[in-house]
Amino acid sequence: MPVQRADARRNYARLLTVAKEAIAAEGPDASLEQIARIAGVGSATLRRHFPSRQALLEAVFRERVETLCAHARERTGRADTRAALLEWLSAVLADAATIRGLATALTRDRATGPDTAHEHCCSEQLTEAGEPLVRRAADEGALAPGVTIDDLLALITGIALATEHHPDPAAEAHRLLGLAIAGVSPHQG
Amino acid sequence: MPVQRADARRNYARLLTVAKEAIAAEGPDASLEQIARIAGVGSATLRRHFPSRQALLEAVFRERVETLCAHARERTGRADTRAALLEWLSAVLADAATIRGLATALTRDRATGPDTAHEHCCSEQLTEAGEPLVRRAADEGALAPGVTIDDLLALITGIALATEHHPDPAAEAHRLLGLAIAGVSPHQG
Repeated sequence: MPVQRADARRNYARLLTVAKEAIAAEGPDASLEQIARIAGVGSATLRRHFPSRQALLEAVFRERVETLCAHARERTGRADTRAALLEWLSAVLADAATIRGLATALTRDRATGPDTAHEHCCSEQLTEAGEPLVRRAADEGALAPGVTIDDLLALITGIALATEHHPDPAAEAHRLLGLAIAGVSPHQG
Repeated sequence: MPVQRADARRNYARLLTVAKEAIAAEGPDASLEQIARIAGVGSATLRRHFPSRQALLEAVFRERVETLCAHARERTGRADTRAALLEWLSAVLADAATIRGLATALTRDRATGPDTAHEHCCSEQLTEAGEPLVRRAADEGALAPGVTIDDLLALITGIALATEHHPDPAAEAHRLLGLAIAGVSPHQG
């Protein structure tokens, strides 16, 4: 029945939103009971949509990566190519720790040893989504010559890893990204 | 007897040099038998100097960190403050993966749970050693305003972590450090 299907879609979307926030705050071991409660559904409904924690983590992981890719596509047509690229890089950095935590948890939960399939897949999708932003900024001289999307994603990964134990990781990561963009060297005016 | 003591010192120094190279190439699980063989001593001599793998790793870890600190002190008087700082940062980056591997192995071997004492201690020593290099470069306008030694060490840590699975980690890390120093933004000349 259409009414039930719309209800189910709303529950799914709400569960995903709540799970995304809970995982960003508490990591991949966030309480499933609490997620169901905050989303206003019973545990049975949660289990119908996500039969296992693994299924929920997979869905949140996919949603995070797809949102960042969509974010890049939306900005690719923007006139200010430099701002478009920098905004996207900030968004990737803001999500980097959560995405990495999910990739690690999905690997661990699967218990298949050192499998980095999720990280590879995420990295390929982000590379493809960000490449047009980089190309457009480079074409307009808004990027130092030779800088690639791989360089930028590597710097972001590094900054996210280096700041994960900092008392205020988001602020510190933002500061370091600003430094890498402006450069450690003094700026000729 | 003085002759024996000199011999013992030479053996110790040679074992440490060989161990340093073996660990940089193969990681903290490098073969102790091979280290003794390449150093031209028997296993008993190795065990006399380093009763356990832990003791050897500790010695190599301390030697690496102290060498980088000495490197900083030697360069602090240099006239070209910018070159002095950049050379030191390159040296820290070149050793970062090895030092981190050792800190992790020392923690793991000790089996005391999540103990980051080695990383903290290393980070404090490097901060103290590098601070005068940063201050001198900043005083001469050879550094963007507000850049701190903590920023620079965080960037180096991040770059080392982000490149550790790269096919050519040293070259890639060097490239990313160059980027962060020059900045991703185009340079006004």
